[in-house]
Amino acid sequence: MPCEFKTTRSVEFSDTDMAGIVHFSRFFVFMEAAEHAFLRSLGTSVAGTLEGRRVGWPRVGASCDYLNPARFEDMLDVHLRVIRKGTSSMTYGVEFRRGDVLIARGRLSTVFCEYAPGQPFRSIPIPDFVADQISESTEEEGGDDAEG
Amino acid sequence: MPCEFKTTRSVEFSDTDMAGIVHFSRFFVFMEAAEHAFLRSLGTSVAGTLEGRRVGWPRVGASCDYLNPARFEDMLDVHLRVIRKGTSSMTYGVEFRRGDVLIARGRLSTVFCEYAPGQPFRSIPIPDFVADQISESTEEEGGDDAEG
Amino acid sequence: MPCEFKTTRSVEFSDTDMAGIVHFSRFFVFMEAAEHAFLRSLGTSVAGTLEGRRVGWPRVGASCDYLNPARFEDMLDVHLRVIRKGTSSMTYGVEFRRGDVLIARGRLSTVFCEYAPGQPFRSIPIPDFVADQISESTEEEGGDDAEG
Amino acid sequence: MPCEFKTTRSVEFSDTDMAGIVHFSRFFVFMEAAEHAFLRSLGTSVAGTLEGRRVGWPRVGASCDYLNPARFEDMLDVHLRVIRKGTSSMTYGVEFRRGDVLIARGRLSTVFCEYAPGQPFRSIPIPDFVADQISESTEEEGGDDAEG
Repeated sequence: MPCEFKTTRSVEFSDTDMAGIVHFSRFFVFMEAAEHAFLRSLGTSVAGTLEGRRVGWPRVGASCDYLNPARFEDMLDVHLRVIRKGTSSMTYGVEFRRGDVLIARGRLSTVFCEYAPGQPFRSIPIPDFVADQISESTEEEGGDDAEG
Repeated sequence: MPCEFKTTRSVEFSDTDMAGIVHFSRFFVFMEAAEHAFLRSLGTSVAGTLEGRRVGWPRVGASCDYLNPARFEDMLDVHLRVIRKGTSSMTYGVEFRRGDVLIARGRLSTVFCEYAPGQPFRSIPIPDFVADQISESTEEEGGDDAEG
Repeated sequence: MPCEFKTTRSVEFSDTDMAGIVHFSRFFVFMEAAEHAFLRSLGTSVAGTLEGRRVGWPRVGASCDYLNPARFEDMLDVHLRVIRKGTSSMTYGVEFRRGDVLIARGRLSTVFCEYAPGQPFRSIPIPDFVADQISESTEEEGGDDAEG
Repeated sequence: MPCEFKTTRSVEFSDTDMAGIVHFSRFFVFMEAAEHAFLRSLGTSVAGTLEGRRVGWPRVGASCDYLNPARFEDMLDVHLRVIRKGTSSMTYGVEFRRGDVLIARGRLSTVFCEYAPGQPFRSIPIPDFVADQISESTEEEGGDDAEG
C-alpha cells in the first residue's frame, strides 16, 4: 500500500526572487503539485465528483522549514510521505533535496470535503477506494538528513 | 462618463525575479487589478451575477511592452483607459509609470460572458447599467511619453 | 516600541483558485508583504545595504493554519506581531480576519543575513537602529478569536 | 538548425482561478518556461555569464490571444517557433494545444543584454555559439489551426 510518492521539480525563472533564490511561497506550490500527482497515482484527483457531488481537499495547515536555498534550473527531488491518515484528513510530509543537500522540509494537512454551492465546505469521510490504497509511512521524518 | 481610471501599485518582493526586477508576467496581474478596480468604481464587479446567471469578463487577448524595469518597493502609477467599448467586449490600454519614467504599456481585451455549468462561456451584451457609464478615451495612446 | 503592525489586504482575482477561494500559498505572500511594510515603518527595508554590504532577511520557516476561506474582493485585516526577537532572527505571528471572522493564522521566521556574491548567506546581528525599535509582543496568540 | 522546440505543460491547481480555468497571466510563465527549455537544448541558459560578465534575456514585449480555456490537469502541447532572429534580439511564437484544440497563441520578444551592477541593462550581440544554432521558422503562424 503506498505511503509515499517521489517526483522531481525543475526550478523555473518565475519561481525565483530578487535574492536569486526560490521564493519561499513557491515551496507550498511544489508540495501541492506532489500531493496532486500522488492522488493521480491512486486513480483519483484533488478536484472531482463523488456520487454527483463536487468534492475536494482544502488545506487546513501548511508549514515549511528552509535549510538551504534552491536556485534557477535546480532539479529538486521531492519525496512525499503520508504522515497521518484520518477518517477525513490526510497529513503529508514533503522533503526537497538537490542531490545530497536537504533544501526544505514541509507539511501539508488536508481534509476531504464536499463543496455544495452557497454552503460552507463540509468534511466527509475519505471514500474507501482511496483510503484503502493509502497507509501511513513508518519512516522517521528527517532521519536521514545530509545537509549541505 | 468615465473613460479612464487611475490607481497605484506598490511592487512587492514576490513580484521580483532573480534579475532583480519585476517579472514580466506580473504586469498582467497589475493590469487586471486596475481593470477590476475600475469595474468596482462603476458599481459592478468582474465576477458577479446578472438576473440569476453567473457572469464574468474572460480575457481574449493581452499584451505588454516593457520599456524600463521596475524594482522592489517602486510605487507605480497605473493609468487605465478604455480604448474600445463594443456590445459585448472591452479593450483597455494601461500605462505604468514611476514618476516620469514610462515602465510598461499594456492592453487587455475582455468579453462579457455568461458561465453556465458545463457549458462553454457564451458572450452576451454588456448590461446597460455598466455600458451607459463608460465612454471610449479620445486621448491618443502613448502621446505623452517621457521615457527614462 | 513597536511590537505589532496592522495593515489590510484586498483579495485579487489572481489570488483565487478553481475552488473559488484564496489559494493557500498566497497567504505566505500576504504575510511577507505585511512584514515588509512593518520594516518600512521602522525606516528600513527587507532588501538593503549595511556598511556597503548587501543584506536581507531570508526566511527559515513559515507556517499557516487556515480556519475559514477568503474570497475575491474580501478586504482582510492583517495583524502582525513580533513573537520573538533574537540577536539575528525575528519570528512574527500574523492573523488574517474579515470583520470578526478569523481566516488564517500564520508564522514567519527570518534571519538577518549578509549576501556576499558567490558565498552562502551568513547570519549577522540585527543592527541596533532596527533592533532598538522592536519589542516582543506580550499579547497571547489567538487569545481573542471570534471564528465564523 | 533548430527553429522550433516542442514541450508539454501540465496545468497545476495553482494555475487556475475562480472561473475554473487557467489564469491568463500563467500563459506568460508557460511561454517563458518553453523558451528557457529551448535555450537549454542549445547548451545555453537564459541566465548565465559571458566572458565573466553577467548576461541574460530581458523581455521587451509579450502578448497572448486566448481561444479556448485550459483547465486543471490538462496536458498542453507547447510549440515554440523562432519568428525572428536579430543581432541582439529574438522573437518567439508559442502555440498551446490540448489535442486538436488550439488554446492560446502567444509571442515573446527578448533582447540579449549585459547586466552590470548599478547600470541599466545594455543590449549586446547574441554570441555566435548560440546564434549559429538558430534559424527562423519558415512555417506560417497559425496556418494549421484546428480550433475546438
